[in-house]
Amino acid sequence: MQTLTVDLGDRSYPIHIGANLLSQPELLAPHIHGKQVLVVSNTTVAPLYMDALKASLANYQVDEVILPDGEQYKTLETLNQIFDVALEKRHSRKTTLIALGGGVVGDMCGFAAAAYQRGVNFIQIPTTLLSQVDSSVGGKTGVNHALGKNMIGAFWQPQVVLADTAVLGTLPERELAAGIAEVIKYGLLGDAPFIDWLEENMSALLSKDEAALTYAIHRSCRNKADVVVRDEREGGIRAWLNLGHTFGHAIEHSLGYGEWLHGEAVGAGMVMAADMSARLGWISAADAERATRLIESAGLPIKAPASMTEEQFLSAMAVDKKVLDGQLRLVLLKQLGEAVVTADFEPQALKDTIAAAL
Amino acid sequence: MQTLTVDLGDRSYPIHIGANLLSQPELLAPHIHGKQVLVVSNTTVAPLYMDALKASLANYQVDEVILPDGEQYKTLETLNQIFDVALEKRHSRKTTLIALGGGVVGDMCGFAAAAYQRGVNFIQIPTTLLSQVDSSVGGKTGVNHALGKNMIGAFWQPQVVLADTAVLGTLPERELAAGIAEVIKYGLLGDAPFIDWLEENMSALLSKDEAALTYAIHRSCRNKADVVVRDEREGGIRAWLNLGHTFGHAIEHSLGYGEWLHGEAVGAGMVMAADMSARLGWISAADAERATRLIESAGLPIKAPASMTEEQFLSAMAVDKKVLDGQLRLVLLKQLGEAVVTADFEPQALKDTIAAAL
Repeated sequence: MQTLTVDLGDRSYPIHIGANLLSQPELLAPHIHGKQVLVVSNTTVAPLYMDALKASLANYQVDEVILPDGEQYKTLETLNQIFDVALEKRHSRKTTLIALGGGVVGDMCGFAAAAYQRGVNFIQIPTTLLSQVDSSVGGKTGVNHALGKNMIGAFWQPQVVLADTAVLGTLPERELAAGIAEVIKYGLLGDAPFIDWLEENMSALLSKDEAALTYAIHRSCRNKADVVVRDEREGGIRAWLNLGHTFGHAIEHSLGYGEWLHGEAVGAGMVMAADMSARLGWISAADAERATRLIESAGLPIKAPASMTEEQFLSAMAVDKKVLDGQLRLVLLKQLGEAVVTADFEPQALKDTIAAAL
Repeated sequence: MQTLTVDLGDRSYPIHIGANLLSQPELLAPHIHGKQVLVVSNTTVAPLYMDALKASLANYQVDEVILPDGEQYKTLETLNQIFDVALEKRHSRKTTLIALGGGVVGDMCGFAAAAYQRGVNFIQIPTTLLSQVDSSVGGKTGVNHALGKNMIGAFWQPQVVLADTAVLGTLPERELAAGIAEVIKYGLLGDAPFIDWLEENMSALLSKDEAALTYAIHRSCRNKADVVVRDEREGGIRAWLNLGHTFGHAIEHSLGYGEWLHGEAVGAGMVMAADMSARLGWISAADAERATRLIESAGLPIKAPASMTEEQFLSAMAVDKKVLDGQLRLVLLKQLGEAVVTADFEPQALKDTIAAAL
């Protein structure tokens, strides 16, 4: 087991990475301060891992909420199901909410923890590669709104994260690739040597090689933690983590949440970010091509959905959170391994990038 | 105009108290950091004061959300109307939400500000006496759930509070009394000399005497700020502020929110807290009687609704936020002017107090 500490003063917490962590009660006990636990999971993950987790929680009042599986259920309405159970079972302010599932479960459980009785403790057990490398660091929680993704939420830090690599054994191929999209992102935005490592180890990752997964999860979390610690509430460089996401969110929003996986949309979005960076003369065409090939080698899409139009892209991007007072800001690449946030670009470059992606 | 600063480090903010503050743009401008403002009000207050406020916001993109008036609308569903407008009008993370209304509007607008894009700026313009003395200090925001009051929310501090005494001119008598309930609370829980002042000045308050109102608002806010500054996230003495509230919430919950005003329920609840404190031998029967007479002199109820039962009280109180791991904790009085939070009481004393109140 490897452990990484996310250093946020009195909100610091450890991330444990390794196999079969679910079944180790001693990893959970120090972080549960009351006698009550509410496990939030979904219809896909609960049948696989709920029993094992409950066996590690034998000393507590354990209640559970099983949400429907899918990004389309990441809404205020579904969130209310968590509050319903917490109140029916009379969970106090000392309760601990545990997220057992992927990013959607983690985002909703985390926001429920932030809002239940104005804030209770929260533990994350991410069960997808994407959530292990992404949503387990940074404290971003929330739900979608019909008019935009992640528009309602809170910054709320967990007490501990257990990234159990054994649970990835049941992860479908398509979801594994979606997780690798975020892993690649950490290379492209700030860790050039990691890009080399990924090019050499992509097939090991795709075959779920334990050592390769552990290395990639640890390095991704460390990269993300470095950024988050420097900028907890996203005033500046934390925006780097949105590399590929403004384009990706536009894809998800236009298709309807749940059609493409988040990581798939981010994969195509990072290709677009690299393409636009090349058009602006910041990186070479060869570097953009190298990024595209790496993304493609993970089995990710490198084009936007054929059904989308330029207008859909521009309209969806206009409501993105990175719009400040009407100006669209994008995360682009100064070089492979260095991101930059900028509103300083020709609108034509954006239109050309969209055209090339369609 | 009087100004009080609530000292919370980098979340400190001023409360301005005085007449016609709504019409002074220079009180708002320093606290609005972007170009967009979203005013949240309700169907009662907006027709009276929205135009005056908008005249003070001539330099901004101003949008508005007019909510239905009443505690029964303080729900996640109504909250979503605020997000709808914010997103339709493309408000960015730099937007400022302004609450123009009583406690319900302030609680919902504040929670919307806490959750919109994971947190935006927020200004409070409370238009009832109750919200001027109570919800404008402390950063508590939230909505109700069918199973409990204020169960979903956040701690979120405003940038500034304008307590405009001129708007109290249109406040109905019953709502004025409900506000005075919270004013009395500050005397009972920690400011014995203020109890004397209130006994002498109750008729001036009831006739909306400007000087008496300003004095009472300032002194109540100062008392509350003193407590909040010492305990922002309610680990300890902040619970004092719930004097009368556990009983009061049980009344509101059992009758259905909106039947009794919050302050009316707190009035009867404080009588119950004083009664129980006397039964436990902490205060004299004469002191309990003195507290009861003061509450009665404001025109507030001193008995619970005749329709309620002991079972309704005990069941509603069991889900109260002050229950820690199954133990009911109450805010009671050690003497007039000194509150205490305790779980150390005979259950029979509680039952006797409920019986006496019915």
